[in-house]
Amino acid sequence: YRQCAIHSGIKVRTVKKKLEHKWEPKSEESTSCINENTKMIVLNYPNNPTGKVLPKKLLDEIVEIAKKHDLFILSDEIYSNYSNDEWKSILSYNYQKSIITQSFSKSHSMTGYRIGYVVSSQDVINKLTRLQALCLTNVSEPIQYTAMKSLNDDVDDNVKTIDERLTRLQEICKEMDLEFVNPDGAMYIFARTKNPINTSELCERLLEEGLAIAPGIGFGDYNEFFRISACQDIKTLNEGMDILKTKIKD
Amino acid sequence: YRQCAIHSGIKVRTVKKKLEHKWEPKSEESTSCINENTKMIVLNYPNNPTGKVLPKKLLDEIVEIAKKHDLFILSDEIYSNYSNDEWKSILSYNYQKSIITQSFSKSHSMTGYRIGYVVSSQDVINKLTRLQALCLTNVSEPIQYTAMKSLNDDVDDNVKTIDERLTRLQEICKEMDLEFVNPDGAMYIFARTKNPINTSELCERLLEEGLAIAPGIGFGDYNEFFRISACQDIKTLNEGMDILKTKIKD
Repeated sequence: YRQCAIHSGIKVRTVKKKLEHKWEPKSEESTSCINENTKMIVLNYPNNPTGKVLPKKLLDEIVEIAKKHDLFILSDEIYSNYSNDEWKSILSYNYQKSIITQSFSKSHSMTGYRIGYVVSSQDVINKLTRLQALCLTNVSEPIQYTAMKSLNDDVDDNVKTIDERLTRLQEICKEMDLEFVNPDGAMYIFARTKNPINTSELCERLLEEGLAIAPGIGFGDYNEFFRISACQDIKTLNEGMDILKTKIKD
Repeated sequence: YRQCAIHSGIKVRTVKKKLEHKWEPKSEESTSCINENTKMIVLNYPNNPTGKVLPKKLLDEIVEIAKKHDLFILSDEIYSNYSNDEWKSILSYNYQKSIITQSFSKSHSMTGYRIGYVVSSQDVINKLTRLQALCLTNVSEPIQYTAMKSLNDDVDDNVKTIDERLTRLQEICKEMDLEFVNPDGAMYIFARTKNPINTSELCERLLEEGLAIAPGIGFGDYNEFFRISACQDIKTLNEGMDILKTKIKD
């Protein structure tokens, strides 16, 4: 979202979150980012990469801030299927200026298909439709049919599978003494070592060993963190984490 | 291209072409559009909607103009498969600032799949890759595999089929006394009636009869023209043109 906005000449102010605060933004920090030119608050919860879900009270406050300043709320809720009970969609506030983005990528394990959807007011949808006509014409027809068909699928098994893998990944990370917050809704863990290291370099070296993890810098000013995905089967996860253990010791 | 450019805040100057000049732009007209801010010439030959292919001499002149003013040439050559022998790709000039767009939509009859490609310098491709990452991430993976597979297909039959249908369509248009130039490379005819009519209104009325043709206004300041596609089988073409005959008389 940041790069898209910047490419369109839009100024972005990011609320920096900290592991020490359980990745929770303070509503005062959000407010201090707002000036008379602000048009939109962008949320992404369950969060990529931290797996954080906002407490209901904080979410209530953010929606109140948006209403007070007449701001759009763009809420990327792509990981909602994998969240715990705490999670609440922005849709449930019935706020007119809400824009909710969703996708088949995570819920239906269809990342490579590149199809999702937006829930918003008729006015916003009309504008997005015009923009889509310029950029894409439309999503590929076979992919639209595939997505429609998959709407009937029961995706509970996907959630269960990821949950098992994530539980195992958390165990290994604890054994390794990595610092992280247990994710509220995610397919990954965002962690750092006790002694900070340059994770961009680490990730490059790991690629040579056949292990791909994402360096924190890809998610903002989080250079000492890395994101480990739990999408592979448990055997592969174990093998991958063995590689990570060895390389972190180096 | 016009709408995409305007959306990005880019000024567009269009060279108006006329049926009376066989849809041929004069190179003087192209030159008079150029000022010190001009960055790019956009070509689309074989042309949609006229089916025009530029004479080689005129294409040579346009490339010379681009070189002289150091302009990019963006050449949309999506209908190249359906062109007569006169057609020459901008690629053949080996001009560094060329950008050629191609697609599987027409050559492989895969319009609904929404996949194409660009041939250009490494520098331009790098910039387009960054833009694609922001807009699309990537083209849907199954669609990429489908397109790769279809690269091995012989598409001559598609060309032959369209040629037969277009020949039949030309016969009917002549019988109907419509004014048009025989297309050099196309799947359609861009025509007008002897007595000019409002084709936007006509097209709306035809939709109610089950006939879809494209009003000229969709292609610029060509309000009295309409584009009739030859993509349906000959029986359907005959039936469609019968509807058109009746409604034009009304």
